[in-house]
Amino acid sequence: MGYFTPLAAIHGSYIVHTDLAIHADWIIPVEPTGILEQHSLAIEDGKIAAILPSVDARQQFEAREVVDLPGHVLIPGLINAHTHAAMTLFRGLADDLPLMSWLGEHIWPAEARWVHEEFVGDGSRLAVAEMLRGGTTCFNDMYFFPDVTGRVAAQAGIRAMVGLIVIDFPSTWAADADQYFAKAITTHDLFRNDPLVHTAFAPHAPYTVSEEPLRRIAKLANELDLPIHMHVHETQAEVREGVEKTGHRPIERLRRLDMVNPGLIAVHMTQLEADEIALFADSNAQIVHCPQSNLKLASGHCPVAQLLDADINVALGTDGAASNNDLDLFSEMQSAALLAKGVSGNACALPAEGALRMATLNGARALGIDHLTGSLAVGKAADLVAVDLAQPETQPVYNALSQLVYSAGREQVRHVWVDGHCLLSDRELTTLDLPPLLERAAAWRARVDDQPA
Amino acid sequence: MGYFTPLAAIHGSYIVHTDLAIHADWIIPVEPTGILEQHSLAIEDGKIAAILPSVDARQQFEAREVVDLPGHVLIPGLINAHTHAAMTLFRGLADDLPLMSWLGEHIWPAEARWVHEEFVGDGSRLAVAEMLRGGTTCFNDMYFFPDVTGRVAAQAGIRAMVGLIVIDFPSTWAADADQYFAKAITTHDLFRNDPLVHTAFAPHAPYTVSEEPLRRIAKLANELDLPIHMHVHETQAEVREGVEKTGHRPIERLRRLDMVNPGLIAVHMTQLEADEIALFADSNAQIVHCPQSNLKLASGHCPVAQLLDADINVALGTDGAASNNDLDLFSEMQSAALLAKGVSGNACALPAEGALRMATLNGARALGIDHLTGSLAVGKAADLVAVDLAQPETQPVYNALSQLVYSAGREQVRHVWVDGHCLLSDRELTTLDLPPLLERAAAWRARVDDQPA
Repeated sequence: MGYFTPLAAIHGSYIVHTDLAIHADWIIPVEPTGILEQHSLAIEDGKIAAILPSVDARQQFEAREVVDLPGHVLIPGLINAHTHAAMTLFRGLADDLPLMSWLGEHIWPAEARWVHEEFVGDGSRLAVAEMLRGGTTCFNDMYFFPDVTGRVAAQAGIRAMVGLIVIDFPSTWAADADQYFAKAITTHDLFRNDPLVHTAFAPHAPYTVSEEPLRRIAKLANELDLPIHMHVHETQAEVREGVEKTGHRPIERLRRLDMVNPGLIAVHMTQLEADEIALFADSNAQIVHCPQSNLKLASGHCPVAQLLDADINVALGTDGAASNNDLDLFSEMQSAALLAKGVSGNACALPAEGALRMATLNGARALGIDHLTGSLAVGKAADLVAVDLAQPETQPVYNALSQLVYSAGREQVRHVWVDGHCLLSDRELTTLDLPPLLERAAAWRARVDDQPA
Repeated sequence: MGYFTPLAAIHGSYIVHTDLAIHADWIIPVEPTGILEQHSLAIEDGKIAAILPSVDARQQFEAREVVDLPGHVLIPGLINAHTHAAMTLFRGLADDLPLMSWLGEHIWPAEARWVHEEFVGDGSRLAVAEMLRGGTTCFNDMYFFPDVTGRVAAQAGIRAMVGLIVIDFPSTWAADADQYFAKAITTHDLFRNDPLVHTAFAPHAPYTVSEEPLRRIAKLANELDLPIHMHVHETQAEVREGVEKTGHRPIERLRRLDMVNPGLIAVHMTQLEADEIALFADSNAQIVHCPQSNLKLASGHCPVAQLLDADINVALGTDGAASNNDLDLFSEMQSAALLAKGVSGNACALPAEGALRMATLNGARALGIDHLTGSLAVGKAADLVAVDLAQPETQPVYNALSQLVYSAGREQVRHVWVDGHCLLSDRELTTLDLPPLLERAAAWRARVDDQPA
């Protein structure tokens, strides 16, 4: 119960000074499970110093800043465990198409034509604005120019893990394998001491990265202690073609390369046989579920209920805005909870509490940063989201967890803190200026529309 | 092209006076298909008088009120083709449970304990507030005390079809079949001349209404020219038990009762064989798809892509807030479009345009009121929704239809008109006072929580 009461408070008679005190109608720490009513959170030096009943907090703490949140629920910041942030600028460019023609005929040509530093900067800033407004405090990214996305995140004050991308074909970011690796190392070095920005290797997918670079990644990731973030078994066609080309299903190929371990963040995973689920369970490898993207591209269903039953850590991602078409973890939690029931035929599968856990603590575990964030516990970073439930769409409140997952919308996020810094205050972004971002987005639309790839 | 230009405007040199002119960046009439850029809508006496390019509208019309909507898309009001409005007061009361235990152990006992006039009035008002804020201008309801819900709708100025409910067991609304029918007729008479509130028979489901009342409904519906709104083939268990009890699948039982005709509004329909799809196609009967409710209760999947291919009219409903848990047709359109792809394995199934059509014109057709509403056409009622796309979540705009269905949220609804009356103005409700509604909801929560059924 150490997360409830700091020592100083137990001794009672004197007042504890702190940076920030937040009093909320409900606090959901995620771990331990359950809902705390009329509780408060004290924050000191960007970290959670105490969680305790508001009646005690008001007596024991004197905070430099006090935030009263009647009608609000306070939750850990949401973690988007798979996205391509800069692709916000391709949002809605090509819809209602299957994965391979969407990629091959639309997205890849548009990327070859348009993706460079300026594009990635503008797209990442738009994405961070959208994510913060929707209660996301950390995102796991995979895209070209990860150095640019990382700098945008650092400037905005949001937590991020940027992917050191590797792919077999040349791009505006790198011409060949050697350049991809050189830039990966440079980018890794760039953020080595950054308190908010982490790095991971990001080989795009088994079907787009060949044997030699994969071997190199496995070795380097091990040496540098970096996770490996990768699309895996996204579609049936990918698995079939993998077998035709290599004689093995892609997961078996990764296993032979010694890549199926706790550092593997395998995204999508819609095609899974029993032995593959057992392998992930035994290896403590990570899975990221992207329900809306999988539906939209008709990629198949990730068997989430089965994976959770096997004690595999499953996190939640939106994928890029070009295949979702938003970066909204509220609607993604709802989709995950609903789809798990529909796919398993069991209305008890993935209850609200499980969906919130996927979008918070499981995300932090997948990224290997659950010592820092992912739940509300004393000593963890104050990565927090206050959600206003006093709206007609979420009234009445029998159960704050149900309202949060099944009824609340991104627009009900009222305040967001990362590391104790308020990045969204009463729905206003404090570190990003919205009007120029929207102007830049409109300018990109005009350019892309004028000169299609 | 009659919907584009009124005669007076063609003759050019003189100015046409009108009540209201709305100038929008995009107008999506739904029928004909497509997106009109920089167009305007002129409204006179609550009806659409003209749709024409803004450059012409600004010259030809002099309106008593002018609404400029840069960055907005104007669409027909959304039609929620199946809901139980008053159940907003049970929102989140019991989640993560299968249909029959959810109904039998939680909802039906709570209804027996709590549902009376005051509850239905408060719940319906909360529902109407939520629906208007989310761009819904018409709803098809099925619940006890339909007279109360109808009066709430009339007072708020929203269009509604209230269901004259019939069910085999006694309720707080009626003690037996005779009383259900007597109250049905009284309620029908109450709204006979109402410009906004229509009525339909609403036998709850084949498994809860026996032969004799169904026969009586079929006869009366025919005489009074009323639709029949009914849950049909919601789950596999319902169909199996129907066969065990009657020797026939429920749809065959309805066919033998002569109820499968254009007046039948069959809701859910997750269990369908080829001959049943053919029967609905041949009979021009109506189907309402409730994707989120079907997922949440693990009821099965309605084969929407197949039904649309068979030229069956398929509308969209949220179901009640206790099984969804909101009345949000934006997220329902997105779910319908995504799920149709996932279930059919075809990423081209139910494109954005089809999802919007289901939530507008198909809804009006299902209710038999497509001569009044459901699309933007000269002569139809000005049931309109202005959606603000100039937000980070929906930028940039390559395709307003994609943004509307795949990215926009209910919170981006800025203005709503029904019959030319503005019911939501810059997100403020004009006919409902929100604070007392929220207080009433909180008071109901306290009562229901204190004395569970």
